[in-house]
Amino acid sequence: MRALDVIVKKRDGGELSEEEIRFFVQGYVSGRIPEYQVSAWLMAVFFRGMSGRETGFLTREMIASGGTLDLSGIRGPFVDKHSTGGVGDKVSLILAPLAASCGIKVPMMSGRSLGHTGGTLDKLEAIPGYRIARDAGELKRILAESGFVMTGQSESIVPADRLLYALRDVTGTVESIPLITASILSKKFAEGAEALVFDVKCGSGAFMKSALDAELLAESLVAAGRDLGRRIAVVITRMEEPLGRMVGNFLEAEEAALCLRGETSGREDLMRVTLRLTAWMLGLGGAAPGLDEAESLCRTRLSSGEAYEFFLRNIRSQGGDAAAFEGALGKKRAPVRLSFTSPSSGFVGGIDAYRVGMAGVYLGAGRSTTSDAVFPDVGMIFPAKTGDEVSRGDVLCEIFGESGEAVSAALREIEGAFVIQEKRPRMRECVIKEYSSL
Amino acid sequence: MRALDVIVKKRDGGELSEEEIRFFVQGYVSGRIPEYQVSAWLMAVFFRGMSGRETGFLTREMIASGGTLDLSGIRGPFVDKHSTGGVGDKVSLILAPLAASCGIKVPMMSGRSLGHTGGTLDKLEAIPGYRIARDAGELKRILAESGFVMTGQSESIVPADRLLYALRDVTGTVESIPLITASILSKKFAEGAEALVFDVKCGSGAFMKSALDAELLAESLVAAGRDLGRRIAVVITRMEEPLGRMVGNFLEAEEAALCLRGETSGREDLMRVTLRLTAWMLGLGGAAPGLDEAESLCRTRLSSGEAYEFFLRNIRSQGGDAAAFEGALGKKRAPVRLSFTSPSSGFVGGIDAYRVGMAGVYLGAGRSTTSDAVFPDVGMIFPAKTGDEVSRGDVLCEIFGESGEAVSAALREIEGAFVIQEKRPRMRECVIKEYSSL
Repeated sequence: MRALDVIVKKRDGGELSEEEIRFFVQGYVSGRIPEYQVSAWLMAVFFRGMSGRETGFLTREMIASGGTLDLSGIRGPFVDKHSTGGVGDKVSLILAPLAASCGIKVPMMSGRSLGHTGGTLDKLEAIPGYRIARDAGELKRILAESGFVMTGQSESIVPADRLLYALRDVTGTVESIPLITASILSKKFAEGAEALVFDVKCGSGAFMKSALDAELLAESLVAAGRDLGRRIAVVITRMEEPLGRMVGNFLEAEEAALCLRGETSGREDLMRVTLRLTAWMLGLGGAAPGLDEAESLCRTRLSSGEAYEFFLRNIRSQGGDAAAFEGALGKKRAPVRLSFTSPSSGFVGGIDAYRVGMAGVYLGAGRSTTSDAVFPDVGMIFPAKTGDEVSRGDVLCEIFGESGEAVSAALREIEGAFVIQEKRPRMRECVIKEYSSL
Repeated sequence: MRALDVIVKKRDGGELSEEEIRFFVQGYVSGRIPEYQVSAWLMAVFFRGMSGRETGFLTREMIASGGTLDLSGIRGPFVDKHSTGGVGDKVSLILAPLAASCGIKVPMMSGRSLGHTGGTLDKLEAIPGYRIARDAGELKRILAESGFVMTGQSESIVPADRLLYALRDVTGTVESIPLITASILSKKFAEGAEALVFDVKCGSGAFMKSALDAELLAESLVAAGRDLGRRIAVVITRMEEPLGRMVGNFLEAEEAALCLRGETSGREDLMRVTLRLTAWMLGLGGAAPGLDEAESLCRTRLSSGEAYEFFLRNIRSQGGDAAAFEGALGKKRAPVRLSFTSPSSGFVGGIDAYRVGMAGVYLGAGRSTTSDAVFPDVGMIFPAKTGDEVSRGDVLCEIFGESGEAVSAALREIEGAFVIQEKRPRMRECVIKEYSSL
């Protein structure tokens, strides 16, 4: 078999066989196939796409390129959730303890902030002392202790994905549905998840700006999951404005804690998305007979305080200081503050999530390149959200930064992000569409 | 400027600016842009194509990557011809001395055989003592002495093309109309040609199998030529059966000599294509007011023997032994011979040029990889061509090889190449379509 022939076959729209995909993935990982052939192949895949079968083969080969996490000794079911990334997306911090409190084990592999989107690991590390799990032993201990564990992508899991992603990143081939599908699924299944729930975000603050792209990714995930014989659910959710009322690292950990403690008023969008995704996890994991029963179980665990107890237990398991965290709630804010007030009276017509995300980058809550450091205490609070009636001079957004320069830069984005209009806007459902492999 | 942004712009169908194309070509030649980004860009160009302007920019940048041949001191006009490659295509060997005898200077840069197509340089080197011009001094001397000169691609001319072609060859991006256009034009203009005539071959024995591809290439060449301010003509010619009656290296040099000496009977296809291309060279070079006058001037130079004189003079200028060559005509044949006879009576319906070309590779007239050597004396003679009436047992093809094994392998291809049918086939015009930048 020759790499050139596989490139040309894909270029001309052919469906690659399992052997051809294995040859390419193994060849790249072992160094037998040079990067310039892999990048030409990736670009051909970008243009020609992949069938569900091809995507399944690719996922399997990527998993086989490294080790998989052995969770033996811990009782499942193991279900994880993955989000394609958004602004103000602290869903994982609420969903993981909530699902755990309902009997699901959540081995959660998360990422860091990049570009305008936040990263779960950065938010967790804003909790005093919190350290993400670093090896399999630590991971299993924490998972057994607190029902969920927060970890990053390890070196030994799916090396093919690390190599391919690094190459995609510099060759304009990131935005390919089958490549995204295989990248996500291989990592998630290699970490031991039996079933997966996906939050595919759609809108200005998401990677998928169009509904069509989001639907194509959802269908690709479900098709590949089915091909791999795994249970998968995909929920397409709206990402036009920030989710919840807080954006930043500590601020989002704080907002997650508030939600778990029942302070959900004004955070209906965040809770709606979180409950729906958690319900799917319970459904796929067999912890509830249906989605309605699952949502109702979740509400019980929230109101009883059990979900919050799992959150605090996890903080302690992962080295964090739960008391210091609780003591810092409402107080831990960066020193330079600025309020953006409404220039007129009317209704908030929209808050462009992408611009809010970019404001976060200027503040140092997010990163423009992977080597940047993030500030834990910077961010934004939104007293007003889409649909709210506001008067001229009302505070629409409070900005917290480490310097006047950063706060000014963020303000320019926030000014541009808000739409104030005379007419009450039509409110739109946060959960757009749902898919499942069942 | 970042290479990634240029890749993504092309990937998404944007038109690249002169600066972006310069950045990419210079970046690659200097080693600043790695091969994996160049190959992703090439694949994006394969899918998205390039406008005439972009192709013009690319051609200019490729020319600028190296030196250009200085023909000062020699009186023009300088006109060259390029063929996209075919089987039995010895047009250059007739056309160059013919054009030279009509007052055109032809600095002809040719290639070697590869795959099923022959190479002009291999055919010339089958002439005893003949050496292709190796440097600028030799080239200018020969051009001044004999009105045309035969040379290969030098190291210093268009290094960007050598680098890009090597990468295209291993990444499945050879078959891209704008990349082919820029590759051909940059080399031809860098060698000093003022005007160019293209023979774009179309059919089973050509790289362009379909009329549409041939037309797209023709239009791309003319558009880029116009953008570069150069005179260009393109003639699309049929390449379904071998051109003329001889295929091989010495055999094709011999057939060229026969045509120049007036033995053109049964070689009407070859002469039709050659006269038309030469007429365009005279037209673009200003040696005749129109194509009809140009063809008529060519016929005069052929019948007077002047064109053949230019051929012999060039052989001597390039170190060849003209007398030995003439003495070898009709005799210099590889030792193992085999005749393929007609299995039935009827008409020759067709001779698949691709299979004849592959027979040539088995005989060693052509190469399957660039490092193979070629045999000068092997090849095939076709007493029968498409449209000829044949009886059972008539010789359709004589095969000359260096071994029984090679001849047997060639025979299998030749058996498969011939179509014998009851009905007289409809004869089709060799010159399919013509384009010019004038």
